[in-house]
Amino acid sequence: MSDTRPIGVFDSGLGGLTVVKALQKLLPSESIVYFGDTARVPYGNKSKELIIEYSNEITNFLIKNDAKLIVVACNTASALALDTLKKNVSVPVLGVINPGAREATKATLNKHIGIIGTVATVNSGAYENAICDIDKSIIISAQACPLFVPLAEEGWLEGDVVEKIAAHYLTPFNEKEIDTLILGCTHYPLLKNVITNQVDEKTILIDSAEAVAREVHVQLSIFDLLNNSGQKGLLTCYVTDIPMRFETVGKRFLGSSLDNVQTVHEV
Amino acid sequence: MSDTRPIGVFDSGLGGLTVVKALQKLLPSESIVYFGDTARVPYGNKSKELIIEYSNEITNFLIKNDAKLIVVACNTASALALDTLKKNVSVPVLGVINPGAREATKATLNKHIGIIGTVATVNSGAYENAICDIDKSIIISAQACPLFVPLAEEGWLEGDVVEKIAAHYLTPFNEKEIDTLILGCTHYPLLKNVITNQVDEKTILIDSAEAVAREVHVQLSIFDLLNNSGQKGLLTCYVTDIPMRFETVGKRFLGSSLDNVQTVHEV
Repeated sequence: MSDTRPIGVFDSGLGGLTVVKALQKLLPSESIVYFGDTARVPYGNKSKELIIEYSNEITNFLIKNDAKLIVVACNTASALALDTLKKNVSVPVLGVINPGAREATKATLNKHIGIIGTVATVNSGAYENAICDIDKSIIISAQACPLFVPLAEEGWLEGDVVEKIAAHYLTPFNEKEIDTLILGCTHYPLLKNVITNQVDEKTILIDSAEAVAREVHVQLSIFDLLNNSGQKGLLTCYVTDIPMRFETVGKRFLGSSLDNVQTVHEV
Repeated sequence: MSDTRPIGVFDSGLGGLTVVKALQKLLPSESIVYFGDTARVPYGNKSKELIIEYSNEITNFLIKNDAKLIVVACNTASALALDTLKKNVSVPVLGVINPGAREATKATLNKHIGIIGTVATVNSGAYENAICDIDKSIIISAQACPLFVPLAEEGWLEGDVVEKIAAHYLTPFNEKEIDTLILGCTHYPLLKNVITNQVDEKTILIDSAEAVAREVHVQLSIFDLLNNSGQKGLLTCYVTDIPMRFETVGKRFLGSSLDNVQTVHEV
């Protein structure tokens, strides 16, 4: 049986399009409904209560739009709202934390993992909990990098200033001798070059997007939800605002132009 | 006659507390109701339509809370929503653009004024229009500085990195030989030292907060709305979220602790 219903993916803004890109590559037949909460971005500095409220609203919207599985493509919402969402809906719900954590525990050889993310993600301890559930002996160091999101959205991705900001956040990891670093925010892969320059050259960077796509594949198979039509899936995007430089920023994350975008005012 | 109703002040977040601070200093008897839209901050990258919608909602809330005059203490909302707000309400509505523009035209000797602000404020051309209405012969240069807000909220207010970011935005002004620079965002006064370091030493910095307070005084006098009780006014704060590090950030802008804060979910 082939299930043609779309996969629902949401993020606080457009950063989650990196997950869409990975899904399109791995599962080209799957249609995707993407929801970017661009009117209320960023989530990284908001309270837990508000992040749960917004995530609930958006998940319900995606379910109404026939989503057969929900991907929370926002690290902050995954860290703070995933448990609540799983209780509230009947379709499978995946976050980006567990796949990223699993990938990192597989990659580390010296059992020292670093995590970078927003203030909310880092304060939540969600990555630590997920890694600890897999292997209690792993030592974890975490660092919030609040300026990385505005830098990525600005497209300020290289040069002296960005290197210095990255050094400010990342140099302490070198003393801790981590061999694996989780990019715990969908914006951070855009800064991969700079991050690579500022950590020990052998450090493995974990970008959750691909790990999440593989996990989605597994879940769709388990629940017999795969679309086996062989036809190319559609991408439909809903946003809560068309902000300044929307197309430029969207293209930066998705890797191709954003078509078929609709604005919704009431979620 | 003494009018004990409060002055309503709003901003996208907590930056507008710099205006509250200036009002408290100049008009200590006036009570103030402050509204910080912390759940939806920042406005600087949102669309005009959304900024007008939010500003209308908040203004109505302040009117319901008995505001006798409204101060739009957000440059972005002043630039994009002020005209609409003035049409919609019966009390006087003041923005931060006109007072800042007037102050700058008084200060400039060589008739070259620089403006820095968010992307939305700079793109709106609101300062240019306001200055041009006063003196068409003034030459204006404007520059968006999108990283200044996250830096100020971070409290990252000095040091090599901040100097370099400021140099990136501000060095071009020195070629243009401006003698006056408008800090067109309520967050920017926190970066005053860095900004001073990066512009010609004779450049006069215009911080709208004090100019706005003086304008409020004039308007209250004209409309016979002053509170002459001689008693110290109260400050009541409403926010749409209590975000991470709320107290630290609030204190940074207000200069004293924030008491009497209530969260509202529906504006």
